[in-house]
Amino acid sequence: MLSNLMIEKHVRAALEEDLGGGHDITSNTLIPEDARAKAALVARESGVLAGLMVALSAFSLMSHEFDMIVHAQDGDSLKAGQVIAEIEGPARALLSAERVALNFLTHMSGIASMTSRFVQEIEDTDTDICDTRKTLPGLRAFQKYAVSVGGGSNHRFGLYDAILIKDNHIAVAGSIAAALDQAKLMAGHTVKIEIEVDTLGQLKEVLESGKADIVMLDNMNIETLKEAVALVDGQIVTEASGGVTQETVRALAQTGVNYISVGALTHSAPSLDIGLDIDA
Amino acid sequence: MLSNLMIEKHVRAALEEDLGGGHDITSNTLIPEDARAKAALVARESGVLAGLMVALSAFSLMSHEFDMIVHAQDGDSLKAGQVIAEIEGPARALLSAERVALNFLTHMSGIASMTSRFVQEIEDTDTDICDTRKTLPGLRAFQKYAVSVGGGSNHRFGLYDAILIKDNHIAVAGSIAAALDQAKLMAGHTVKIEIEVDTLGQLKEVLESGKADIVMLDNMNIETLKEAVALVDGQIVTEASGGVTQETVRALAQTGVNYISVGALTHSAPSLDIGLDIDA
Amino acid sequence: MLSNLMIEKHVRAALEEDLGGGHDITSNTLIPEDARAKAALVARESGVLAGLMVALSAFSLMSHEFDMIVHAQDGDSLKAGQVIAEIEGPARALLSAERVALNFLTHMSGIASMTSRFVQEIEDTDTDICDTRKTLPGLRAFQKYAVSVGGGSNHRFGLYDAILIKDNHIAVAGSIAAALDQAKLMAGHTVKIEIEVDTLGQLKEVLESGKADIVMLDNMNIETLKEAVALVDGQIVTEASGGVTQETVRALAQTGVNYISVGALTHSAPSLDIGLDIDA
Amino acid sequence: MLSNLMIEKHVRAALEEDLGGGHDITSNTLIPEDARAKAALVARESGVLAGLMVALSAFSLMSHEFDMIVHAQDGDSLKAGQVIAEIEGPARALLSAERVALNFLTHMSGIASMTSRFVQEIEDTDTDICDTRKTLPGLRAFQKYAVSVGGGSNHRFGLYDAILIKDNHIAVAGSIAAALDQAKLMAGHTVKIEIEVDTLGQLKEVLESGKADIVMLDNMNIETLKEAVALVDGQIVTEASGGVTQETVRALAQTGVNYISVGALTHSAPSLDIGLDIDA
Amino acid sequence: MLSNLMIEKHVRAALEEDLGGGHDITSNTLIPEDARAKAALVARESGVLAGLMVALSAFSLMSHEFDMIVHAQDGDSLKAGQVIAEIEGPARALLSAERVALNFLTHMSGIASMTSRFVQEIEDTDTDICDTRKTLPGLRAFQKYAVSVGGGSNHRFGLYDAILIKDNHIAVAGSIAAALDQAKLMAGHTVKIEIEVDTLGQLKEVLESGKADIVMLDNMNIETLKEAVALVDGQIVTEASGGVTQETVRALAQTGVNYISVGALTHSAPSLDIGLDIDA
Amino acid sequence: MLSNLMIEKHVRAALEEDLGGGHDITSNTLIPEDARAKAALVARESGVLAGLMVALSAFSLMSHEFDMIVHAQDGDSLKAGQVIAEIEGPARALLSAERVALNFLTHMSGIASMTSRFVQEIEDTDTDICDTRKTLPGLRAFQKYAVSVGGGSNHRFGLYDAILIKDNHIAVAGSIAAALDQAKLMAGHTVKIEIEVDTLGQLKEVLESGKADIVMLDNMNIETLKEAVALVDGQIVTEASGGVTQETVRALAQTGVNYISVGALTHSAPSLDIGLDIDA
Repeated sequence: MLSNLMIEKHVRAALEEDLGGGHDITSNTLIPEDARAKAALVARESGVLAGLMVALSAFSLMSHEFDMIVHAQDGDSLKAGQVIAEIEGPARALLSAERVALNFLTHMSGIASMTSRFVQEIEDTDTDICDTRKTLPGLRAFQKYAVSVGGGSNHRFGLYDAILIKDNHIAVAGSIAAALDQAKLMAGHTVKIEIEVDTLGQLKEVLESGKADIVMLDNMNIETLKEAVALVDGQIVTEASGGVTQETVRALAQTGVNYISVGALTHSAPSLDIGLDIDA
Repeated sequence: MLSNLMIEKHVRAALEEDLGGGHDITSNTLIPEDARAKAALVARESGVLAGLMVALSAFSLMSHEFDMIVHAQDGDSLKAGQVIAEIEGPARALLSAERVALNFLTHMSGIASMTSRFVQEIEDTDTDICDTRKTLPGLRAFQKYAVSVGGGSNHRFGLYDAILIKDNHIAVAGSIAAALDQAKLMAGHTVKIEIEVDTLGQLKEVLESGKADIVMLDNMNIETLKEAVALVDGQIVTEASGGVTQETVRALAQTGVNYISVGALTHSAPSLDIGLDIDA
Repeated sequence: MLSNLMIEKHVRAALEEDLGGGHDITSNTLIPEDARAKAALVARESGVLAGLMVALSAFSLMSHEFDMIVHAQDGDSLKAGQVIAEIEGPARALLSAERVALNFLTHMSGIASMTSRFVQEIEDTDTDICDTRKTLPGLRAFQKYAVSVGGGSNHRFGLYDAILIKDNHIAVAGSIAAALDQAKLMAGHTVKIEIEVDTLGQLKEVLESGKADIVMLDNMNIETLKEAVALVDGQIVTEASGGVTQETVRALAQTGVNYISVGALTHSAPSLDIGLDIDA
Repeated sequence: MLSNLMIEKHVRAALEEDLGGGHDITSNTLIPEDARAKAALVARESGVLAGLMVALSAFSLMSHEFDMIVHAQDGDSLKAGQVIAEIEGPARALLSAERVALNFLTHMSGIASMTSRFVQEIEDTDTDICDTRKTLPGLRAFQKYAVSVGGGSNHRFGLYDAILIKDNHIAVAGSIAAALDQAKLMAGHTVKIEIEVDTLGQLKEVLESGKADIVMLDNMNIETLKEAVALVDGQIVTEASGGVTQETVRALAQTGVNYISVGALTHSAPSLDIGLDIDA
Repeated sequence: MLSNLMIEKHVRAALEEDLGGGHDITSNTLIPEDARAKAALVARESGVLAGLMVALSAFSLMSHEFDMIVHAQDGDSLKAGQVIAEIEGPARALLSAERVALNFLTHMSGIASMTSRFVQEIEDTDTDICDTRKTLPGLRAFQKYAVSVGGGSNHRFGLYDAILIKDNHIAVAGSIAAALDQAKLMAGHTVKIEIEVDTLGQLKEVLESGKADIVMLDNMNIETLKEAVALVDGQIVTEASGGVTQETVRALAQTGVNYISVGALTHSAPSLDIGLDIDA
Repeated sequence: MLSNLMIEKHVRAALEEDLGGGHDITSNTLIPEDARAKAALVARESGVLAGLMVALSAFSLMSHEFDMIVHAQDGDSLKAGQVIAEIEGPARALLSAERVALNFLTHMSGIASMTSRFVQEIEDTDTDICDTRKTLPGLRAFQKYAVSVGGGSNHRFGLYDAILIKDNHIAVAGSIAAALDQAKLMAGHTVKIEIEVDTLGQLKEVLESGKADIVMLDNMNIETLKEAVALVDGQIVTEASGGVTQETVRALAQTGVNYISVGALTHSAPSLDIGLDIDA
């Protein structure tokens, strides 16, 4: 779902970052210009694949002469040792693009794998896992795509595509009602309004206003969250947030909340180990 | 040590990523244009600070009207609750820049903190921790800077600033001796030559050649590594690599190897929890 | 509400477009480097001002030495002859930036003025005017801001911030119900779903589904539109679209529809005549 | 006559503007990845076609898999209902590129059509219509190309490719003679010199100087303009300017002036209605 | 006459080229962050200064904390040992920007100096020296500015700002007359038409046509050139070109030709030796 | 050894520089859109070829329809009149790209040719010629590649890939020993350390320290240089620098120094005359 335009732009930039003002001095010194090589992308541990097309584009951007055979696709569960794709082409280009390809692939697959672990933890509930804006600078679209590949849902992409009213906004507006009135009045009709609350009292104000589409229930304990879900009673969408871990997510989901947002998916997911085995 | 030119360029891009083609619709809707606010960057857990100037530049780029008081600097150990800096200025700009500032700061501090844990694990040895090219696309300079803040050393920045001969290069060149001859002949005199070996036999070939500056001892067990270090006997620099963890790093260092390179520092460091407390 | 980051980026590009690889050969030939000048931005016809800060930034980007006095702000009604702002500074920079400043200002004010005429036409109704994605390439944020200054509301900013299901999407999905089911399932919870219908039959399908937030009533005549509004009865937001003109907008509004979207605001608004009177 | 380099650069930017940091969430949600579609670009009103290659490149940039059949070319007169081109390819890419393609095509055709109306108004005279620098920021090359397609001529492209001396330049130089002397002395020999005059007295000074290539006769009434043309008597090129409309252009042309410059062509041309009819 | 916008853009890019993805590792390692230094830009040989503002901007872009005293300006004749400017500020930034500043300054001054030597060679004639499009990629505006500083005149800036008809264009058009007819018909009235001829026969065709503004007399010997100038007799501008050297330029000028274009000014000028003397 | 990514990026920018906001008005006016032409790149003087792939990419970027036959490759010695490559394709694109192609090719071949002259001067010695950071802004990678094609070696690419300690750094550090200690401590293990000395006394300090990889012997006379080489006795790499010319290089090499760095290769190499002969 990532557009080719975006993939090419970012992968090109990553290759330039690695090549610097210069070039791959090792491969250009040691590998003849016409040497060719075969290689396989191989999972070294189990997880969920994400970013295969991104990784392969690193090779294509270095040379038009690659042949590729794809054995898996984004969202597939990988086992250690599984061959994901095979690549054949110019050896210099293959070696020069290797690290950039893997840096995208192992990071994106790491996010998809972590997301998948959260999703599986609560798969018998009606709750969905979603991401946040706690992403790594420059990589948001790639990270959010990886969350969706892992079975998660995407929260807003930036400051521009949904209103999210936090305590500071409420403080300036004077009250929850005033903030929601103002937001409803000013927001375009294609924009959803979400508001963050910490207490059941605030939640009641939100429900009375009738102007929020989504309520973020921030850092509530399980009991309060249950009461909150009961109070909302399906009138608007509910989202639990705040320091959620794989250990705490199940109890949160069992409260019946609609969404649980998890910042760690994009700010703290370890990479998934995937390597490139080369037949020189 | 990051140049201002680079900081401004990347932080500007990150702000544009968050603002999209539009703007912060929440703050622009709810916060009066002339409202001002005070805020404090506060550590929510202990760790090592990195990226403070990067984070503060997010605010400066949104508005020239901020006053800032800095209470800590990169490399400082943080305790939970510690105030890192105070900021006062236009409320809209403050809220719009908050997430970008924190995304840089928590990621960079996360890397510095993980690096510091590795460094402390082996601080009574003569071994140094260093990073790799397993970085997140677009963020390499920021990540490598964070490693140095955490007490680590930087390996090469890209394909352009050092030669690193791996098994595939050796295979094409025909032998370790041939690869090193060719590299020595072609490399500029300001470029160091590193070569990766898996066995003591290969290591001997490297030492006989006399043309490598650094040898990477890849995935060797502790016993072999000890023998390798003894064989090298200070003639060239030694570097151990391969799946190093905080659990295994000490035994590796005790072999007397000069450097241990750790990919996880830049591909798998969880973020350090730092927040912005705002007085509206 | 346009961020400074975006304004500077686009105005800088516009100045580069006008200066080309070279420079203002007339002013650099005829105006001494240290000559200064005063000028006034003056409305030559009545309308609504939009883009003043954008226009002024053209001068600031050419030189830091300008003094400016602002007599009006975006959204103000202008009369022919009214002085909008006064500028004093280096004559070369003033003359070089003049055209770019006016090109932004007269275009944005033209859009705000046309929007305002539509809004006034229906100001006693509960209907709002909104824009579309029929914008001029590269200028969308500036155009949509001008619409809001003129009293209009903004429809989605791009393909990324709201779902808008059109006939082709419905055809592929098989039915309105299927399309809405699929959209509801896949869309993140912060994304609104709008669907376009041509007939009352389709509208009923939409209402039965219960999964749309907004319905676009496309090219309906007044009678059908009234029936449609009655059918919807406030359950979801209604939007009329299709070749709306200043002549037809009032009758449309009187049907009680919530929004009327007008492509002409951004693809066909004539510029508002504003000039720069210079005292050399 | 627009270079491919420029077309690709600007169309890519326009697609990125529409796709934002994300993607076409509607099409990606509702259209299967392998679905294909046919579509036709169809004129909805009569006018002059301009920008067809620009519009088609929007599709090509989204996917290499489009087949296109072209039935018309830039400069052709279109009738309502006329099929301009047919396109067949991936449905997602087709729907995602549609709006950008049409935004360029309808704007450029709108300019060509307005230009053509001015040109036809005076086609039995020896006068040519030309454009100005009153263009929309970022779109100048596209707009000026559309003017030429509509039968108009292009005035200078920017501040860099011709000298145009206005009243402020004259005031600083001291006199028309002094300004022209200085310009002739400093200008490269490939640069033409144009000077703006308001009165016959000024015109005489210009002619006496013998150093201008073109005189702009600004805001003169018909009688004065006739006298001016007679005075010039073919010695240099004459250009009438100032608030020219379709109603006033014919009388101006009948004075025998060589060129009439019309700012409205690029700052106020309404778009030409062209649509994309899709067979899903 | 170079705009600040262009200077900043190119100097920033040059600094990024020198700093790479990293930073000045020497200065950042050895110079304390708060160390300050004084330095002087000093001519090491005699010549003509060009690019001083460009060079100084390299320091300003690295830090806002520099104080500068300027003792000379572009166009001044320099003697060996002459102090051009003094700079005081942060030592790290000074050392990091030094090479970029000097690379611009010595190259631009080298061009101005070579131009000046050509100009002095013919200063008692009415002929002017001008440049060509034989410039170094990316540096055209800087090089052409340096030519003008050295007393030369600028030929067209690119393919876009004047018509220059060469033998291949004539061959396709069928004849000189046909080429000039077509050019006159299609060119905007602000564009000059130049045509290249090799023989007096061709020159006559050009003069008969009456449609060229400038004739380039290419690779003619002195006798033919004299005849050509006599034939033209001031009707149009004459330009001699083709392998002109400092040795041949005087004889060419004595033929009375208006301009002599010299490619070597921008493709082969040696740099002028200017250094930075630093008081640490 | 230049990556395609870098070549395309810079050649595209050079084409945009030449085409400006417009296009090749001469060719677009005079050459029919479907005209084709053949041309040959021909050496007009003897020298060393460098940049052929860069030059050819200028044509490929303007049109995909070129056929090319290559008769020589970078590093080949050229004789006057020798055909380097033949090109056949669209005439407009050929003429529009000609100058950019030649500007790269003649500059890069000029550098390779000058380098080759220095190299031949000392080919019976063990000394190598290398370049410096005295390059033209934006062209460093192209220039350094041309030096290597001419038989030279590359010094560091920028401030980021090697440490080079100069007198100012030593002054701040306090002593040569202190500077080298600090550099050794802080530099990553993949970074070489070079230090500049003016006297034999300084050289001894460097050798005693044992921490430098390379010593730059700056502006020493032949006798001192011989003593310096003898003192070093192969312990570290030696590099002579300072105003080296083709006349002085041989005596320098005969001292036995390992490298001689020559700034003139990149700041003062005259272009090599290569032309494009077109059969219209």
